[in-house]
Amino acid sequence: MPRYKAVIAYDGTDFCGFQIQANGRTVQDELEKTLFQLNRGNRVVVCGSGRTDSGVHALGQVVHFDYPAVLSLEKFRYALDTQTPPDIAVKQVELADDDFHARYLVTEKTYQFKLDIGKPRNPLKRKYTSFYPYSLDLALMQISIQDLIGTHDFSAFCASGSTIENKVRTIYDAKIEHLDQEEELVFTFRGNGFLYKMVRIMVGTLIKIGNGRLPVDAIPPIFVSKNRNLAGPTAHSEGLYLVKVSYE
Amino acid sequence: MPRYKAVIAYDGTDFCGFQIQANGRTVQDELEKTLFQLNRGNRVVVCGSGRTDSGVHALGQVVHFDYPAVLSLEKFRYALDTQTPPDIAVKQVELADDDFHARYLVTEKTYQFKLDIGKPRNPLKRKYTSFYPYSLDLALMQISIQDLIGTHDFSAFCASGSTIENKVRTIYDAKIEHLDQEEELVFTFRGNGFLYKMVRIMVGTLIKIGNGRLPVDAIPPIFVSKNRNLAGPTAHSEGLYLVKVSYE
Repeated sequence: MPRYKAVIAYDGTDFCGFQIQANGRTVQDELEKTLFQLNRGNRVVVCGSGRTDSGVHALGQVVHFDYPAVLSLEKFRYALDTQTPPDIAVKQVELADDDFHARYLVTEKTYQFKLDIGKPRNPLKRKYTSFYPYSLDLALMQISIQDLIGTHDFSAFCASGSTIENKVRTIYDAKIEHLDQEEELVFTFRGNGFLYKMVRIMVGTLIKIGNGRLPVDAIPPIFVSKNRNLAGPTAHSEGLYLVKVSYE
Repeated sequence: MPRYKAVIAYDGTDFCGFQIQANGRTVQDELEKTLFQLNRGNRVVVCGSGRTDSGVHALGQVVHFDYPAVLSLEKFRYALDTQTPPDIAVKQVELADDDFHARYLVTEKTYQFKLDIGKPRNPLKRKYTSFYPYSLDLALMQISIQDLIGTHDFSAFCASGSTIENKVRTIYDAKIEHLDQEEELVFTFRGNGFLYKMVRIMVGTLIKIGNGRLPVDAIPPIFVSKNRNLAGPTAHSEGLYLVKVSYE
């Protein structure tokens, strides 16, 4: 059966995350519902590159699924895009190798985190940026974020509840941009993989440093400690975007 | 009684426009409710620079009201901002002259209209941009928009139902920017006043020209005709922003 790879975007606001669960509306749910109808009542299992949490947005989530027909790709994309609800967009559909796997073959992911630092909060962005109304020293955060780059054991930056044993990950690139006209900070992280809530804990830690409640050199000892309690709080989900997923 | 001038922003999605009406939630309603509570149960009438329609957003709407106390302006702003619902922000509060009037003394208004031209529509912007999936020749629209600048009788660009007699307005500046990375067009109009749905009809006309269903020189004869039916359709409200209101 042909295997398809699709790139999708979604507004996470009204989803209980990507992955199907007992209760609550999920992105996987909606995709499978649409494919079920296109496939005349036969289930099509959708596999994503990874979960996103409740409220987290995606601009470039990747999924794969097997579908028993070779269709015009643009017609297939259009059918999926228009038949899924308006908070999901299907940006691209392509035929993939039979052994393509959206989750296991990921080489790189890019996340962004958007922080509204305006006073007051921009009401038009309240579902698409997190909000921090207190003072932030961006220069300190720019220094500290360098400590996150490289290969580290990110145990202290992983929410409890994760069952993954190996918590070593590599961050290739991490930066903070100040969109001046927008009174907004955009954090970007590109790495080979991210643990449960890792991006939001890294952002929460950088904010705590920027606000002067952690020293600028706080991050290396937090790595060594492997202690979640020494890192900053988990930043809110509405600021987080899965931007891009790359494969070999 | 001291007169205050305030600059507010709001997400128009869940409002039936700015102005109080018999049915439906409005921005004026919410502002007056908050001021009623601050003022210990006495009504405070809020006057805006003009109405905005159902679904239209504002980044810089201006209002005035009389309030029987001289307060610290930042405390007053903060109280109003935090006590109004999250889809309204109070950006600035200042003391105004006794004869300041938010509506009658307007010298200039700036509106923007945001159009998502991506395929597919960006689901994260679906409440904050209008969507046009068909072909658009931006160069033609850039030529035609010049015809809107200047002093004209805008009768053909005014929705029926308006009771205003004098339909001559002056547009000082009009432009279209293409945010390339965003697959978005931003129309900006700065003028001494705008008729009922005028911005949305101008945008609808420019889109029709860009799509080749009206000629590039369509606008001058539409002015002469004063016939609403010759102009383009009214573009959707979710793309429209009241950006700035200026006074002498």
